[in-house]
Amino acid sequence: MSDLRIDDLPVRDELRGKSPYGAPQLDVPVRLNTNENPYPLPEALVERIAERVREAARHLNRYPDRDAVELRTRLAEYLTRTGGHEVTLTNVWAANGSNEVIQQLLQTFGGPGRTAIGFEPSYSMHGLIARGTGTGWISGPRNDDFTIDPEAAARAIAENAPDVVFITTPNNPTGNAVSAETVVALYDAAQAAKPSIVVVDEAYVEFSHGASLLPLLAGRPHLVVSRTMSKAFGAAGLRLGYLAAHPAVVDAVQLVRLPYHLSAVTQATALAALEHTDTLLGYVSRLKAERDRLVDELRAIGFDVTESDANFVQFGRFADAHEAWRKILDRGVLVRDNGVPGWLRVTAGTPAENDAFLDAVRALKKEQLA
Amino acid sequence: MSDLRIDDLPVRDELRGKSPYGAPQLDVPVRLNTNENPYPLPEALVERIAERVREAARHLNRYPDRDAVELRTRLAEYLTRTGGHEVTLTNVWAANGSNEVIQQLLQTFGGPGRTAIGFEPSYSMHGLIARGTGTGWISGPRNDDFTIDPEAAARAIAENAPDVVFITTPNNPTGNAVSAETVVALYDAAQAAKPSIVVVDEAYVEFSHGASLLPLLAGRPHLVVSRTMSKAFGAAGLRLGYLAAHPAVVDAVQLVRLPYHLSAVTQATALAALEHTDTLLGYVSRLKAERDRLVDELRAIGFDVTESDANFVQFGRFADAHEAWRKILDRGVLVRDNGVPGWLRVTAGTPAENDAFLDAVRALKKEQLA
Repeated sequence: MSDLRIDDLPVRDELRGKSPYGAPQLDVPVRLNTNENPYPLPEALVERIAERVREAARHLNRYPDRDAVELRTRLAEYLTRTGGHEVTLTNVWAANGSNEVIQQLLQTFGGPGRTAIGFEPSYSMHGLIARGTGTGWISGPRNDDFTIDPEAAARAIAENAPDVVFITTPNNPTGNAVSAETVVALYDAAQAAKPSIVVVDEAYVEFSHGASLLPLLAGRPHLVVSRTMSKAFGAAGLRLGYLAAHPAVVDAVQLVRLPYHLSAVTQATALAALEHTDTLLGYVSRLKAERDRLVDELRAIGFDVTESDANFVQFGRFADAHEAWRKILDRGVLVRDNGVPGWLRVTAGTPAENDAFLDAVRALKKEQLA
Repeated sequence: MSDLRIDDLPVRDELRGKSPYGAPQLDVPVRLNTNENPYPLPEALVERIAERVREAARHLNRYPDRDAVELRTRLAEYLTRTGGHEVTLTNVWAANGSNEVIQQLLQTFGGPGRTAIGFEPSYSMHGLIARGTGTGWISGPRNDDFTIDPEAAARAIAENAPDVVFITTPNNPTGNAVSAETVVALYDAAQAAKPSIVVVDEAYVEFSHGASLLPLLAGRPHLVVSRTMSKAFGAAGLRLGYLAAHPAVVDAVQLVRLPYHLSAVTQATALAALEHTDTLLGYVSRLKAERDRLVDELRAIGFDVTESDANFVQFGRFADAHEAWRKILDRGVLVRDNGVPGWLRVTAGTPAENDAFLDAVRALKKEQLA
């Protein structure tokens, strides 16, 4: 019995032979593989978190605020201030990471007998969470340069009439942004095919050269913009994702959210981080500059580089991307092989980390040319 | 458009006309409605939480330990020490509340085209999470005294061949425990009908007169025992649920868990609480004595009371339970109307809270008899 394995259990058929999602967690000097923010939170914020959590811990015997009213209010203020569009508490919902936000959206608007589409390569969790919620997954097209062709994408929507459409901008793992015009075209196509929910995943938008697509919410009740505090707020360990949408969408996801899903310590920590927004956005500026430097230097070395509006850069091309990944790892730098044939992804780290990465790929290039 | 409501959106059919789960959150002097532990965490533990969270916050820019190894190890030690059965890291999994544990189990072993059974009235989230995961829900039988008749229950399992069986012990909202013999009988019936997963929900087991059913795990690879830190550990605000099972079950739920589902602050806070286990179990002893007092005094007043192994008591009977609920509320005490016809549920609070409750129901009884 101790030799029993997953496939010996009565698991769902679609889970047989699968492995859990997740980047390899390796102990390497320079880790640029999971798009984490390399800057630790400033000590003043660390202290403020301890203070707010201490206060929350005094009431920890009670359930947390089920509706996270204070947190959603502060998130709405942040979005209004930085997103070019006014939203309030009633427009905002928060959960344990944007993954849980997406799961709740799929449980509400997708699920058994329904489908969702994404334009791949894109954030692979969209498809995995679709599977986990019994939602059929449709892989929509992208151009060879990883941009979305609005006509081809609209055609895929018209043909499949999906219930949920995912548009990731800036896109992960490729880095490039999707224009407002394309999002509007796909929203219109999705409404014409079937009134469906369009989720704009803006996990990396604070690193973008352009603006948030939040203003598109006006007049579009089936549009959802999802966000996270993992990247721009330097809080991947906090697991705080959120969305902005019409209040009816916020009401609807509450039909499937697990009651008291967001712990009192998570709410307290997120509130502390939001008090330090300006400092944290200062780190974002530094990372944008480093990201631009990575793009320039990678091109100077002779790599192909996808335009990036994120805190990471996709570079190639490699005859064997996994072999290149391994060779960069041998030089002490962990980047990400997302399975896009010929390409790898590197997260913008600190200047020193980026220098170490650039040294590694310079050596790799020399070896390739030798 | 601002008048748009949930049912105007393309939500799943089974969500139409539903409202979110949750007890009314009312501002009342004595709240005995959600089975919270009335004792705030001791100040030494509050300080230890602040300390551990401060340390975790220094690395918050990084993703948390995806496998929560330290936390699962400590939980395994706690179960081994108190549950009468040795388990290790590989037997234990943790998530955001036992609700998320149950959701992961249903995503793995239930889901579209599959069914789950519970013996009702029982914890209503089992059925709601089944709905949220597309799992068909079967309402199994209970006797009029809220015990489970092993033969009737085994027959329901044989007839329906469910993929997942829930047995809540002590049962919520009725309070009574299920014997090991009954659980074994239902496990055997479930294996005969279809190899199915049997989940023993022990959320309230620390308050029981009897022992945990953890030893039943030996030789039963399809058995899962679920637990929570919300009640015995006085940490409802923390949202930390966990399970013990065969290692293959722990591996299997990782196929559906959202990556990095458990935040670094949640892990840090739970670890701090586990350091103070003995103090917290001291509060449990006090609550058990208060629970027994509630049972005795309610009977002395003239109410029917269901045997309780939990930190709450079911009492009745009322011609109109909701009217009785309202009358107790008018006297400043919030209890729970779980929709069990004729019965209400009261959580064991502090001695003063319980006195206030007993005064309120004494007055109610006088009014009924007048």
